[in-house]
Amino acid sequence: MLFHTPRKKWLAKVSQEKKLHTHLGIIDISAIIGMEYGSAIRTTEGKLVFLIEPTIHDFIMKSERKTQIVYPKDLGYIAARTGLKNGSKVLEIGTGSGALATFMAAIVKPDGHVYSYDINSEFMDIARRNLEKAGMAEYVTLNQHDARSGVDIREADLAIVDLGDPWTVLDQVHDALKGSGAIVAICPTMNQIEKTATELKRSGYADVDCVELMIRNLEAREGMTRPSMRMIGHTTYLIFARKVQKQEQEYLEPAVDEDEATGEDEEQGSNHTSRA
Amino acid sequence: MLFHTPRKKWLAKVSQEKKLHTHLGIIDISAIIGMEYGSAIRTTEGKLVFLIEPTIHDFIMKSERKTQIVYPKDLGYIAARTGLKNGSKVLEIGTGSGALATFMAAIVKPDGHVYSYDINSEFMDIARRNLEKAGMAEYVTLNQHDARSGVDIREADLAIVDLGDPWTVLDQVHDALKGSGAIVAICPTMNQIEKTATELKRSGYADVDCVELMIRNLEAREGMTRPSMRMIGHTTYLIFARKVQKQEQEYLEPAVDEDEATGEDEEQGSNHTSRA
Amino acid sequence: MLFHTPRKKWLAKVSQEKKLHTHLGIIDISAIIGMEYGSAIRTTEGKLVFLIEPTIHDFIMKSERKTQIVYPKDLGYIAARTGLKNGSKVLEIGTGSGALATFMAAIVKPDGHVYSYDINSEFMDIARRNLEKAGMAEYVTLNQHDARSGVDIREADLAIVDLGDPWTVLDQVHDALKGSGAIVAICPTMNQIEKTATELKRSGYADVDCVELMIRNLEAREGMTRPSMRMIGHTTYLIFARKVQKQEQEYLEPAVDEDEATGEDEEQGSNHTSRA
Amino acid sequence: MLFHTPRKKWLAKVSQEKKLHTHLGIIDISAIIGMEYGSAIRTTEGKLVFLIEPTIHDFIMKSERKTQIVYPKDLGYIAARTGLKNGSKVLEIGTGSGALATFMAAIVKPDGHVYSYDINSEFMDIARRNLEKAGMAEYVTLNQHDARSGVDIREADLAIVDLGDPWTVLDQVHDALKGSGAIVAICPTMNQIEKTATELKRSGYADVDCVELMIRNLEAREGMTRPSMRMIGHTTYLIFARKVQKQEQEYLEPAVDEDEATGEDEEQGSNHTSRA
Repeated sequence: MLFHTPRKKWLAKVSQEKKLHTHLGIIDISAIIGMEYGSAIRTTEGKLVFLIEPTIHDFIMKSERKTQIVYPKDLGYIAARTGLKNGSKVLEIGTGSGALATFMAAIVKPDGHVYSYDINSEFMDIARRNLEKAGMAEYVTLNQHDARSGVDIREADLAIVDLGDPWTVLDQVHDALKGSGAIVAICPTMNQIEKTATELKRSGYADVDCVELMIRNLEAREGMTRPSMRMIGHTTYLIFARKVQKQEQEYLEPAVDEDEATGEDEEQGSNHTSRA
Repeated sequence: MLFHTPRKKWLAKVSQEKKLHTHLGIIDISAIIGMEYGSAIRTTEGKLVFLIEPTIHDFIMKSERKTQIVYPKDLGYIAARTGLKNGSKVLEIGTGSGALATFMAAIVKPDGHVYSYDINSEFMDIARRNLEKAGMAEYVTLNQHDARSGVDIREADLAIVDLGDPWTVLDQVHDALKGSGAIVAICPTMNQIEKTATELKRSGYADVDCVELMIRNLEAREGMTRPSMRMIGHTTYLIFARKVQKQEQEYLEPAVDEDEATGEDEEQGSNHTSRA
Repeated sequence: MLFHTPRKKWLAKVSQEKKLHTHLGIIDISAIIGMEYGSAIRTTEGKLVFLIEPTIHDFIMKSERKTQIVYPKDLGYIAARTGLKNGSKVLEIGTGSGALATFMAAIVKPDGHVYSYDINSEFMDIARRNLEKAGMAEYVTLNQHDARSGVDIREADLAIVDLGDPWTVLDQVHDALKGSGAIVAICPTMNQIEKTATELKRSGYADVDCVELMIRNLEAREGMTRPSMRMIGHTTYLIFARKVQKQEQEYLEPAVDEDEATGEDEEQGSNHTSRA
Repeated sequence: MLFHTPRKKWLAKVSQEKKLHTHLGIIDISAIIGMEYGSAIRTTEGKLVFLIEPTIHDFIMKSERKTQIVYPKDLGYIAARTGLKNGSKVLEIGTGSGALATFMAAIVKPDGHVYSYDINSEFMDIARRNLEKAGMAEYVTLNQHDARSGVDIREADLAIVDLGDPWTVLDQVHDALKGSGAIVAICPTMNQIEKTATELKRSGYADVDCVELMIRNLEAREGMTRPSMRMIGHTTYLIFARKVQKQEQEYLEPAVDEDEATGEDEEQGSNHTSRA
């Protein structure tokens, strides 16, 4: 259960305790039980608090973790870009805290499944607890196993690689994916995207594409609307590719489009609308 | 069926024709039928082409349309942020070309459903064709009806508003959502986000949050990795909120965080606090 | 004198005191006097500290202030875009803490001059102190006067307006500028740029252009290069225009370029280089 | 002389010809001579055109070139960040088309000077012509000489390196700079910033900082204000550092701020600290 006030929100589990002590005053739990989500309640100090049902997004953002999580902006783009949907079979290499697996399971269930590999037993335990809290445990199979020595999965629709060295499992993923299946690697550094992109092209993948998503909050207030002064500068890069038949030699990538190589004429880009 | 070459990709439907004429030479369709996705073929001019199964993403990007579509970066974030999942009941106001409905149906099916409203009959026809092409027609109910006069839906998990004036349907959406259900409005201009955010706070919604997503492509090549010179500057802003009990008077949103009002000390960032 | 260590930098004035107490240990001032800039010294705790000559940038970033300062990214763009140079005559409306005036004076001196107006006497005092510290006082004339009632300046090359309501001084600026002279307004909110841009077009200005600059820090380390996780999300928008002969009626602005009105075909923009 | 219409602007030199033929009709030059900048004229087709005095910015953007130019956003930041001002002594390695030298000369003149080195004689010729057009030739000394074999300049305030391999001239620049003098390298790729930043720390430089500037245009129209759909995705990274006394061994840069290494709590921002 998520409590939301105009200033803050926090996640709390309704338990046996009769009173919830907060910095805004005490909340009487017995009075809340049975109330609808969206209800407004008052603390003992008269502060307004709303009861809000947590979404998968809230579970992920508040989940127990030891590793850098993948942010919703990146999770969502992975789903949208690879066409993740109900029934998809997903291979994950690098379970981490299970945030990615939780998110994907919520989309592919009940007909699809997520098979997730990690060598770290501590992460496995955290991931298991997070999946259970979010109600997704039955749609995810956790394997404590080094994916570099191969995985049992075949005909997967999507493989997500969240390792420091994604290029070490490209052959194993190639075996696990169905024809033209999608791979995405999560790479925080430029060095990782460079090496991964290069190796993908040599390992039977096409349509290799690297992107970065930036999210910006806006303060929308009457007569004073503006972007927030704060922003997260970077979370990760994402590399996408599709499995294709391996070629004897790397096919030729175009170096640079001619029009890109040309100096732009104006700082604002080649086409301008409104320069008066 | 999607054909992909190192330089271009295009969508083609395998039909009765025996030959597909392309700018890279002729492709013999009879030779392709029965081939697996991911296979490499050669055109009559010897060019390498891969057969790739189109995803929902490809259908959307290539769909017939008369309106500005919602881009995958925004689609994905809507799904990730609102916790869209299998079984969700979705209300859409503003069907447009059906791209959003296609994407959401792929996630909520088979147990969930999308109910989409638009007053424009021409859009309805386009949307119907696009939904059929993507195989999502049975999970989406199209209603040619002005949502301003109310919608029949109740207990929806999510409402997506893609209108020029989203503030005109906030009460109708409030009736349609379940308690603490999510609303998202798609607003290309600052004026729209300002007015929508203001009206949401007056109309029984909390946790109002405006964001913008920017996507950047990277060219990952050995020893020459850099962001692309080209970028889409802006698609749309997104506003998220959750339905709560209506209050007699607008509750007070904090104007500006105190630490935000203070002059920043250095251009590279400054004291920030977590919102949660 | 700026002290710089691998972790921190701070500005200190060499004064009569014999010892400078810092969190890294004590620095013996008598040993420093006469040393060259760039010299490495050791504190009593053996920490390495470099002596670095502060630039105008450092003075501005460390200046006393009561208002939001204009950041170097914005200062620099104003100079580069308007062609500010030695000899330029500059009108500033809204002195604030004098940071902008300090920066401009350093460029236009010794032949140019900055005439700065503000109605706030407290700001004037702060600005005066900051200008003196930076050695720019003789190149800036401060006027405590409401520019709305007109300014005495004529034939200015550039006018910089840093007010909450820049549209109130457009006629006064028009009188003060030379033919085709440049105006720039500093507008943190969208509402300000909208109103200012609209009024500029009605008030005898052409080439109206609004921009925003975003700065991103990068962490360049061997094998781990990536953008910083932190970033300033927004400082201000900038509007540029050139004074032209007033027209009897507003001339027609093109609404939207045709190619912009068209839906883009692909999320990554119309021309792609490296999609493999 | 710059002609500016609501839709386009172009640079033209007033010469002996009596008529200027444009796509908007013919402009009678004899009628223009003697007119003030900012004047409105009509072409033979009745189109409104303004006469606008070109700035250094316009000369740079329209200059003859064979290489990628440095954009005003980057030029301006270099000036603002390094405190470039009247009287500065500047060393440039990599003259290119002379755009950077033109810009810097306009700021440092008449007391300062720019010494620019390039090995390419063709670039030298282009740069010479561009400097003359902009009236900056007397403030810039061009040297066709390989800076790798050393430069004669000493006590420079600023060195700008615009080479593909900036790390090859760091010792030469160290000799040329005054104590705590500034260096900036222009590096379009991540690989260049990684190598340059690493070598700077080993070569007697401190306060090493890498940034990227992004510029975004906005369409400010009543009730429809929004960022432009088009944007330049990337021009270059910039690396700044200050010359210090060389150390026997590389001093330790902090690897990662502790708070940065921690997982962020929320996607909208988190605990940040000022660097100063």
